[in-house]
Amino acid sequence: MLQPDKVRGNGNAMKPQKSSPLACEAIRDVRRHDADPGPRTGDVTALDRWAVRLLAWIYGRPPVTITLWNGAEGYRPAGRPVGHVLFHDRDALMSALLRPETGFGDAYSAGSIEVRGDLVDVLFRSFVEMEKSPLARLKQSALGRLPRPWRGTLSDSRRNIHYHYDLGNDFYALWLDREMVYTCAYFPDAEMTLEEAQAAKMDLVCRKLGLQPGMEVIEAGCGWGSLALHMARHYGVRVRAFNISDEQIAFARERAAREGMTDRVEYVHDDYRNIRGGCDAFVSVGMLEHVGPENYPRLGRVIDNCLREHGRGLIHTIGRDRPMAMNGWAEKRIFPGSYRPSLREMMAIFEPNGLSVQDVENLRLHYARTLVLWLERFESSVPRVRQMYDDTFVRAWRLYLASSAAAFLCGSLQLFQVVFARRHDNALPRSRAHVYGDAGTSSWHWD
Amino acid sequence: MLQPDKVRGNGNAMKPQKSSPLACEAIRDVRRHDADPGPRTGDVTALDRWAVRLLAWIYGRPPVTITLWNGAEGYRPAGRPVGHVLFHDRDALMSALLRPETGFGDAYSAGSIEVRGDLVDVLFRSFVEMEKSPLARLKQSALGRLPRPWRGTLSDSRRNIHYHYDLGNDFYALWLDREMVYTCAYFPDAEMTLEEAQAAKMDLVCRKLGLQPGMEVIEAGCGWGSLALHMARHYGVRVRAFNISDEQIAFARERAAREGMTDRVEYVHDDYRNIRGGCDAFVSVGMLEHVGPENYPRLGRVIDNCLREHGRGLIHTIGRDRPMAMNGWAEKRIFPGSYRPSLREMMAIFEPNGLSVQDVENLRLHYARTLVLWLERFESSVPRVRQMYDDTFVRAWRLYLASSAAAFLCGSLQLFQVVFARRHDNALPRSRAHVYGDAGTSSWHWD
Repeated sequence: MLQPDKVRGNGNAMKPQKSSPLACEAIRDVRRHDADPGPRTGDVTALDRWAVRLLAWIYGRPPVTITLWNGAEGYRPAGRPVGHVLFHDRDALMSALLRPETGFGDAYSAGSIEVRGDLVDVLFRSFVEMEKSPLARLKQSALGRLPRPWRGTLSDSRRNIHYHYDLGNDFYALWLDREMVYTCAYFPDAEMTLEEAQAAKMDLVCRKLGLQPGMEVIEAGCGWGSLALHMARHYGVRVRAFNISDEQIAFARERAAREGMTDRVEYVHDDYRNIRGGCDAFVSVGMLEHVGPENYPRLGRVIDNCLREHGRGLIHTIGRDRPMAMNGWAEKRIFPGSYRPSLREMMAIFEPNGLSVQDVENLRLHYARTLVLWLERFESSVPRVRQMYDDTFVRAWRLYLASSAAAFLCGSLQLFQVVFARRHDNALPRSRAHVYGDAGTSSWHWD
Repeated sequence: MLQPDKVRGNGNAMKPQKSSPLACEAIRDVRRHDADPGPRTGDVTALDRWAVRLLAWIYGRPPVTITLWNGAEGYRPAGRPVGHVLFHDRDALMSALLRPETGFGDAYSAGSIEVRGDLVDVLFRSFVEMEKSPLARLKQSALGRLPRPWRGTLSDSRRNIHYHYDLGNDFYALWLDREMVYTCAYFPDAEMTLEEAQAAKMDLVCRKLGLQPGMEVIEAGCGWGSLALHMARHYGVRVRAFNISDEQIAFARERAAREGMTDRVEYVHDDYRNIRGGCDAFVSVGMLEHVGPENYPRLGRVIDNCLREHGRGLIHTIGRDRPMAMNGWAEKRIFPGSYRPSLREMMAIFEPNGLSVQDVENLRLHYARTLVLWLERFESSVPRVRQMYDDTFVRAWRLYLASSAAAFLCGSLQLFQVVFARRHDNALPRSRAHVYGDAGTSSWHWD
């Protein structure tokens, strides 16, 4: 496996990181909550057996067996089971039953629920059944429409971004690709490695944007800075890249300095709301999830203020094929403030702001593949992750990566790349063939 | 210019058509309305001069001069004018002023307003200015949200489709391509003829659908039947194609019989609401405009009932980059019951029905080019059109074709091709490269 040795140098941002207080404390809460694990053996009552059948019904009769703490089988599906779920104590069972949004994830993280079998596959097959479950119907109706706990202010954003992205660069370097790209890769060829697929994704974005040497690009939400460097190095553009994660921006700046790219790439430690100045291309890969639907019209106004007459924009984001609230556990423990929009919801960025959608591509299964590869690398790094954090953290992140892969596999999550232009721009490419071949772009000439 | 001689045989549907009572009477109303053209010379009052300046202000100060019936210039734009508008009488001026949605179009059709200069260009440049006009703001606010006069029932649909599409096959054959394709063509190469571009559009649709020999296809709204024949002939599929236009379906059936294709293409004289049975591909090119947004969830349910597990769908439609009511004149005189949705509105087809959008392409400028070519052929056929109908009809259709081209040029209209699949379909192509090259589709294999 390729390790990010070249990227991780000797600079400040590369030093071994302290645990981020926010994320680790939230995940440590899990253990406090499950501090008294209750009886581990014996005393399975008739009520317990009834509770596990109720649980299976609520979750849509998943294709797994469920075993209780005394070793007795509490539930068996109609068809062949794809895996086995073990409840090590009654609290775990009650937690999953009474707190359906967070209980399973917390008990899994605490180690009081165990899953045997291919975790991604077990979750994928279970999610498919869950779609028709009473729980899903409840979530799609009243519960799913509860107001989000975030107002989407800048301070909310800073706190939420710090929570996830400032966990420590060394941690992410253990299982991301060499370039530290933390978004969906692109696998047009089945044999591609993660490294190749991340490079292919960056090229796909650049080709869709029609980047030409000398263009000025604004990037909103730049992660560890890899796309900005890729655009500048391979397409001859100048980039201003924005991010509010302290650790990511420090890492990106140091890398740009080390690679002599500071004249072409500027990393700005600021929020998308404060972006000013003109650009020929506006790109945002994996930031919209943290913007919140209440801010979409505002994001559109920021773009409208920046994009030049013939400028092109691209937003790459996790989405849904219908509006749905975040999964409660992921929202609480992993990605606070996150929201994945449907295409209908995304249009609030474009429609009020004179921006015309030119192209949408759904890369759903590419993200499933990306997550499976991340999970493989994560698993082979578990001993080192355990040195940084603890077992609860390891299990929480295992569940997060596997359940995300499963959610893309079952269609609960989508990945949209949306290309847009100004409504009056008539210098548009005649086709999308240039994205897929070496031919130059033939454009319309109406002006 | 290629004429549709081969297509137009000796059958019933080919005979010279009687004027359609609906469309022709509606357009004849124009003349009745303007029956008393008022004074043609002299007596331009101070009030008239004020009215023409008010008119120019309401329409956003278009880049044209306006001349009144006494030859006096009533309005001159700040910049260089791109054309000249002549009001031949006071009624025309008042009509345009007091009935801003329909007055200009009706007076133009009646011949009491004349436009000198390139009609498409004059309208295009004027539409761009009109976007910022008081009229546009009014329309975008209260007026634009008035309920549509159609309930979208099947009898509404039958009447509306009859109005436009049953004008007479001979009329459409004068200015459409040889294959009688009455939707946006596709010009990836600037040198393409209309015939080539319509064939390229049909291939684009077939490639996006991933058609393979033996597949069963349902087409909703098949026009004169060309796409169904193209799919069956070049992609080896079997097609059931639906349409409620009497004349189109008769034409299509006769052609299929003449070309020995009836074993592979069945034309069904019925509404999309009555489509039943399974299919591997569901395609609809240029029908959604007549469905009405109130029926989008229902159309989605029809598709959901038909589409097989790994089936692919494509909807090709005129749209908007933001919700907006139909232009009043076009709705009244040309396309009753028509509505062009924004992408946000279109999602009502997919999101409630478990259909996931895979790909959206905007072909806006391709429709502008198509309309310019149709207009050229129409103009060269005017003597024959005049034999079929009358001058009012000729002017109304000239304005419809030219203003549609202008609307696509200025971004007021868009053209969306939306490809979709079932939410659980994991046999998706890995990229869109197969649409643009000869390479076969490499698919994901997750199942």
